[in-house]
Amino acid sequence: MAVLDAIRSRPGTTHPRLVQQLGLGRTVVSQRVARLEAAGLVAQDGLAPSSGGRSPRRLRLRRNAGLVAGVDIGATGMTVGLADLSGSVLAASREAVDVADGPDVVLGRVERLVEDLLARLPAPPPLWGIGVGVPGPVEFATSRPVAPPIMPGWDGYPVRERLAGRFAAPVWVDNDVNVLALGEVRANPAAAEAGDLLYVKIGTGIGAGLVSGGRVHRGVNGCAGDIGHVAVAEAGAVSCRCGNVGCLEAVAGGAALAREARRLAERGGSPALAEALAARGGLTAADVTAAAERGDPAARALLARAGRLVGGTLATLVSFYNPGLVVLGGGVVHAGDQVLAAVRESVYRRSLPLATRMLRIELSALGEAAGLTGAVHLVLDSVFEAERLARWLPWGSPAGHPDVACGPAPGPA
Amino acid sequence: MAVLDAIRSRPGTTHPRLVQQLGLGRTVVSQRVARLEAAGLVAQDGLAPSSGGRSPRRLRLRRNAGLVAGVDIGATGMTVGLADLSGSVLAASREAVDVADGPDVVLGRVERLVEDLLARLPAPPPLWGIGVGVPGPVEFATSRPVAPPIMPGWDGYPVRERLAGRFAAPVWVDNDVNVLALGEVRANPAAAEAGDLLYVKIGTGIGAGLVSGGRVHRGVNGCAGDIGHVAVAEAGAVSCRCGNVGCLEAVAGGAALAREARRLAERGGSPALAEALAARGGLTAADVTAAAERGDPAARALLARAGRLVGGTLATLVSFYNPGLVVLGGGVVHAGDQVLAAVRESVYRRSLPLATRMLRIELSALGEAAGLTGAVHLVLDSVFEAERLARWLPWGSPAGHPDVACGPAPGPA
Repeated sequence: MAVLDAIRSRPGTTHPRLVQQLGLGRTVVSQRVARLEAAGLVAQDGLAPSSGGRSPRRLRLRRNAGLVAGVDIGATGMTVGLADLSGSVLAASREAVDVADGPDVVLGRVERLVEDLLARLPAPPPLWGIGVGVPGPVEFATSRPVAPPIMPGWDGYPVRERLAGRFAAPVWVDNDVNVLALGEVRANPAAAEAGDLLYVKIGTGIGAGLVSGGRVHRGVNGCAGDIGHVAVAEAGAVSCRCGNVGCLEAVAGGAALAREARRLAERGGSPALAEALAARGGLTAADVTAAAERGDPAARALLARAGRLVGGTLATLVSFYNPGLVVLGGGVVHAGDQVLAAVRESVYRRSLPLATRMLRIELSALGEAAGLTGAVHLVLDSVFEAERLARWLPWGSPAGHPDVACGPAPGPA
Repeated sequence: MAVLDAIRSRPGTTHPRLVQQLGLGRTVVSQRVARLEAAGLVAQDGLAPSSGGRSPRRLRLRRNAGLVAGVDIGATGMTVGLADLSGSVLAASREAVDVADGPDVVLGRVERLVEDLLARLPAPPPLWGIGVGVPGPVEFATSRPVAPPIMPGWDGYPVRERLAGRFAAPVWVDNDVNVLALGEVRANPAAAEAGDLLYVKIGTGIGAGLVSGGRVHRGVNGCAGDIGHVAVAEAGAVSCRCGNVGCLEAVAGGAALAREARRLAERGGSPALAEALAARGGLTAADVTAAAERGDPAARALLARAGRLVGGTLATLVSFYNPGLVVLGGGVVHAGDQVLAAVRESVYRRSLPLATRMLRIELSALGEAAGLTGAVHLVLDSVFEAERLARWLPWGSPAGHPDVACGPAPGPA
């Protein structure tokens, strides 16, 4: 079953290379390739240079043999897209949504968007799967959100069963930061090369996605990377929305930035923030980043402080995890370079020297697009995984649309 | 190539089960099994119940077709052993050694011990590989120690090349805590079941081994888990042997325990420690654990404090990594239950509730034996890994002793 995945991973590969790479016999490889061609999954792509005898045929995945839907649900907006089997997005829609409206409303709109996109394609191939990122913890095996703090009504909701029932396709659901990390590692060559990386999202919440050897590390409850509520000395007795005190998020998250910004504005510490407060009667983290981008020193200092606080925790995590790359994403980090510079300073100052020898700390190369890309690859990684594919493509019978009863856990009832 | 690994992982499996598990054709499985039998690697092991036709033969790895050497080098002692291909230790020796004597002295003694053990076996099968754990960071790809603080003379030393040259077998070298973690996950059923775990060693140094989905996560420089030198607020400006200030190890490691014990003894805070100090003129962490085991309240309080400090850092790492199991090992943790109780209290109080929902925190089930076990499995995991095996066992040619030129990186010159 590894043949299709090998062809997918190295487009333009040949029979002899597959034999060498996979350690399978020549006859076995030929039989498998013939079956994949008969099933419409693999096509010839010219000839490779000969190394003696006949020139070997180049092989590639027929990327348009199937479709994959990606769904990136955020706190206040969502993106839905369709991609081919190589992960290239063919069509996408973005619209505002309040995740707190609950799964019925939100998934109803997801379903309509997927249907609209499918209707736009002239002759859509079968839908191979749906990948969904949501802004909260998810038990990956069951695809159910677990006590997500900003998603009332979603706790334990059967997202997989609902979407799989509607579209007769397998469904995978994951936390949004894991999906961002996956998108980065599949579509950003520097991230792919690093192999071991941390994606750190600093927005309203603060969370991390862990990648080990190119695979997302989710932990036993699917909540690995939940660093917003670790204790930091600087937070002392500051209360957090989680009910605890002293959390990183309580002093470095978006709400903390808004709170400090209001204090600054009211005390005359920042003309730019005072102006924004007067104009709208309230302040958000976005006002801080906007003021910083216009050069307001107090707003820049606020962002730098948040960066140092996150960097202090990251220093511990870098010593612990030894990643090759830390990717910073989220609304707060893209305002000038204050956050990036402060995070770098803290990490390089305090992490073990050996752990930072090869470490790069960069802003996300993909930005928000990583969410949709990651959701698409959540499906592609799973459907091309050897064991699962073996059940989907019983050799000898034509394939095409995979059996919805397969997937990482039982599909729809 | 997955056939041998499948037979190894599930002793007593049958042809039909291999066909089902691996998604290979019946003919392919039969051919491979026949070749493995011809090569002396697989043997029949009785018959399984019939499900209609002929009773299928049970298959198992011929565990005595090869030998594996495990070497567990600590700061002051080392264990060397030989195991069969199932990982069962056949013979082992332990002796005192000072790792600071340098690689020539220490590896010279390793070589002699391996040769002595080989000489004890009547007709030793070929040596398939050597696994080595050392008390310092190792670049896993090259098997070379990297700036190990307590191993003068070892920085960049070609351990692989030296031992591979002597024994004509591939060699893998890893940090001792990674090796302990691997031993635990391969030989402790609870650890194997957890899949994602942290092994935390509290001794002279403090370090962690990370396991993700049953595989050791080493990080890009092989220094993942180096948590002894992360900053903790309680350490304030306390100097650490690493040259930095405020490190966890500086307040919770063995040297810190000895320092605090001396202070207590000199100030009359602990009769037991004062007695030990008078008897020997100095105190070590072992004196603290001995006093605690005899019920000395001050010594017990010292251990509990060390446990709370380690637990405070672990609380962050548990939220970040979401392991199913934290295993505590090392000299300091096995003295009564003070350390275990204090670590548990800190982690359960401060980690994200979801991250501790399924978390167990236990003392190592294997104790010191995990080092040798892990070193043996460092080899077995590698030699049975599918891709590598494909190169070692060109189908159709008899196998036996694997080609030493193979391995995760080039073998001996």
